[in-house]
Amino acid sequence: MEKLSIIKIGGNIIEDETSLNAFLKLFSNLEGHKILVHGGGKRATHIASKLGIKSKMINGRRITDAETLEVITMVYGGLVNKNVVAKLQALQVDAIGLTGADINSIKSDKRPVKDIDFGFVGDVKKVASNSIDKLIQADFTPVFCAITHDGNGQLLNTNADTIASTIGVGMSDIYETSIYYCFELNGVLQDFSDKNSVIKNINTNSYKELLDAKIITDGMIPKIDNCFDALNNGVQKVHIGNTAMLTKENDNFTTITL
Amino acid sequence: MEKLSIIKIGGNIIEDETSLNAFLKLFSNLEGHKILVHGGGKRATHIASKLGIKSKMINGRRITDAETLEVITMVYGGLVNKNVVAKLQALQVDAIGLTGADINSIKSDKRPVKDIDFGFVGDVKKVASNSIDKLIQADFTPVFCAITHDGNGQLLNTNADTIASTIGVGMSDIYETSIYYCFELNGVLQDFSDKNSVIKNINTNSYKELLDAKIITDGMIPKIDNCFDALNNGVQKVHIGNTAMLTKENDNFTTITL
Repeated sequence: MEKLSIIKIGGNIIEDETSLNAFLKLFSNLEGHKILVHGGGKRATHIASKLGIKSKMINGRRITDAETLEVITMVYGGLVNKNVVAKLQALQVDAIGLTGADINSIKSDKRPVKDIDFGFVGDVKKVASNSIDKLIQADFTPVFCAITHDGNGQLLNTNADTIASTIGVGMSDIYETSIYYCFELNGVLQDFSDKNSVIKNINTNSYKELLDAKIITDGMIPKIDNCFDALNNGVQKVHIGNTAMLTKENDNFTTITL
Repeated sequence: MEKLSIIKIGGNIIEDETSLNAFLKLFSNLEGHKILVHGGGKRATHIASKLGIKSKMINGRRITDAETLEVITMVYGGLVNKNVVAKLQALQVDAIGLTGADINSIKSDKRPVKDIDFGFVGDVKKVASNSIDKLIQADFTPVFCAITHDGNGQLLNTNADTIASTIGVGMSDIYETSIYYCFELNGVLQDFSDKNSVIKNINTNSYKELLDAKIITDGMIPKIDNCFDALNNGVQKVHIGNTAMLTKENDNFTTITL
């Protein structure tokens, strides 16, 4: 099986031109087949507020009404995605920007209304790995933004971490797949006050111990649960760290395996 | 040689949900290989004005400054393009939305500053017909918006009619290519006050006569000159009319050949 790397970047890199350019340079040097997944974050909030659209939050979670979905489609699918593609082309990466609607790559279901109506938010149902692979086989590098569709003409806002993990699961039928989650920290930390206390390896057993010892807590738990979901469904390895983990010299990041 | 149809739609169809849906239905029923090219028009002006960006015009032509380019990237590349792709997927067309930066498909040069600085406007230099053909051969239907790039990371605003004609010229190395320009009128008119006075066929000779007789005037001249440019560079036929020309029953439109 050939190898495929899926790299997910978040708002902290997207927002800052210097960080973005530095990251894209690293990404362009990465060997082998690769897919980029990006969010959009604060840029969407900023443009929404300029357009007089208030971000609606319930229990700390953003609600995607019709107006907000329009802004997300403009910012994630247009502004961020197309500028990233143009920058990658300048670095000789033959990038192609995609939402889940393009080539029907990621179909999702609009989240059912229970206690909260999240609006136009999609939970991923199906990744068209064969269609995505046609692009890879044509030597194109897919760049996904955090938008999917329901197959009936409706675009849906979808968490970028989930997009990375579900693409990873889908592609692992065809490739030996690794996911790299880039964030602000060097990795999962043993001691949150020491940014160099990176836990280099986590597996199913050590994860249980880290949870019991309350070393991994709060917001990190759903992130790592999401990683184990991917690993349990075919993904080979998941890496968490800052963008320097994409260089061969750096091994100061967290690798999660089963 | 296999046949390829390139269909260009303008603002009048994009702006109106009912017209757009009706058009996309016709497009989905069109047999053979096809490419869609769309502008964005008033929607961009509308969102720009909401964002407090004034449209700058010199001699009746829009200037694309950095802020305007951002809006165009959001509206053409995101909002319009991705909604069209999602709607086509619902009609079982395996669409893929593109700017000229994606797969390096359309490279352009920033228009040199002479009397007027048009800003971030691109004049098409090179169409990557082989890369576009990889998508077609993979059974994907390309949907282009009116944005190109310079290969150095800069997106550029480019006239959608020109995008359609230059893609047509590029693809005519591989396919027997026809271009369909959809607009409000039934075709090129003999008598502008009679919307049914469609001139069904124009060729190089009859065009000269129509110009001499001042039957074709004003804004229609650069449009038809652009068609002859395409025909002189490999495109087989150019059709001008309303979207009904995509149905087999209707022959009330203008066909231009050499």
